[in-house]
Amino acid sequence: MTNVDPRQLPALEVIATTRAIRRYAPRPVEDALLAEVLFAATRAPTGRNRQPARFVVLAGTPQARRARELVAANAQRMWQEALRDEYDGDAHTAADRRLARTMDEHVRRLGCAPVLVLACLIRWRPPSPDEGASIYPACQNLLLAARAVGLGGVLTRWHRGIEADLAQILDIPQHVAIHATIPLGYPAGRHGLVRRRPLRDVVFEGRWGRPAPWAVDPAWTVHGGLV
Amino acid sequence: MTNVDPRQLPALEVIATTRAIRRYAPRPVEDALLAEVLFAATRAPTGRNRQPARFVVLAGTPQARRARELVAANAQRMWQEALRDEYDGDAHTAADRRLARTMDEHVRRLGCAPVLVLACLIRWRPPSPDEGASIYPACQNLLLAARAVGLGGVLTRWHRGIEADLAQILDIPQHVAIHATIPLGYPAGRHGLVRRRPLRDVVFEGRWGRPAPWAVDPAWTVHGGLV
Repeated sequence: MTNVDPRQLPALEVIATTRAIRRYAPRPVEDALLAEVLFAATRAPTGRNRQPARFVVLAGTPQARRARELVAANAQRMWQEALRDEYDGDAHTAADRRLARTMDEHVRRLGCAPVLVLACLIRWRPPSPDEGASIYPACQNLLLAARAVGLGGVLTRWHRGIEADLAQILDIPQHVAIHATIPLGYPAGRHGLVRRRPLRDVVFEGRWGRPAPWAVDPAWTVHGGLV
Repeated sequence: MTNVDPRQLPALEVIATTRAIRRYAPRPVEDALLAEVLFAATRAPTGRNRQPARFVVLAGTPQARRARELVAANAQRMWQEALRDEYDGDAHTAADRRLARTMDEHVRRLGCAPVLVLACLIRWRPPSPDEGASIYPACQNLLLAARAVGLGGVLTRWHRGIEADLAQILDIPQHVAIHATIPLGYPAGRHGLVRRRPLRDVVFEGRWGRPAPWAVDPAWTVHGGLV
């Protein structure tokens, strides 16, 4: 895959090979590429086409740097908590250990990620579990477009618990919710086939729990559960 | 665009031309295509890779038909309410009127849409405004993949208010939330450039409200606000 121009890849291939990229090469991201991935983000649908999503790009200004440091410190704290709560004990698989190493490095170096994008939602009604319908499709477009232009990123909640501090530093109004923190950069590793549970476990026909006989993964699928 | 095999289109072009498709040709959707778009859906990221999304595909079984009739009736009711609440008065633009005609037809014929997919989330914690991060990226993958295989669909909330009835008919467990209703079919119209607000309105740099000078739309962009 290394020598193929990712811009030429068909959409289905980009979708099947957009991995969460958590480690970035020490190389700045060109503004023109950022504009392309944010343009892609804005092509996503939103409820009644309200277009309530806004993207705050954090790079080198003093306010941005303070916000990035906060996010990075928060990520390290959240990851340490997750390690204590979920990864403790000796039930580790090789994939768990690999992920843990990647995450360690990810949170340690997050403050130096080339770009952080905060995906924000201007709320038009009280908070609700389905308001994400108007922002997470945009985040997915952003990640797919990043892969298509040679970048990579990952959808995170590293803003959780420090929303008020970020809002103060970045002048984010009160009716606006930060819904995702997306680091972006040139991948230190690379994209590749995404591993997931087989379709038969997640696609039902006619009613909950009834497998759809036609829901068969492509022959080349790499299966995987929690990785 | 008519004669190009959509499967060969680069991802960025698919992203820029995936419209909400609300009218479908009277032609069944092949199971193999459904499998492809659902496979694409499952490639999306989820929080901690929990993979809590499930897809209930409604076609011709008796339970499915009852569920579809309920959804269609609900859509007609919701659309009539929206018309009363938001589209009343004489502030109509041509785009408003076009959308109103399309929506009228969409809800009237929803019961006959070739496929309805309910995108469901197995909750692992109490409902929260950001739980959609683990299902709406999958919905966007599904819509992009539909466009890439020659189909079209639209992300809707036509299940709103009748979740309990649908859960009963379709045996959906109590800890599972329906997060989207996605009709799919061969488009009666066609895909094409998506119109949105210009990037300068939605991309900020360093802090909220500060335009990013590099956030410029491509020259070929078709602008549009609420359409």
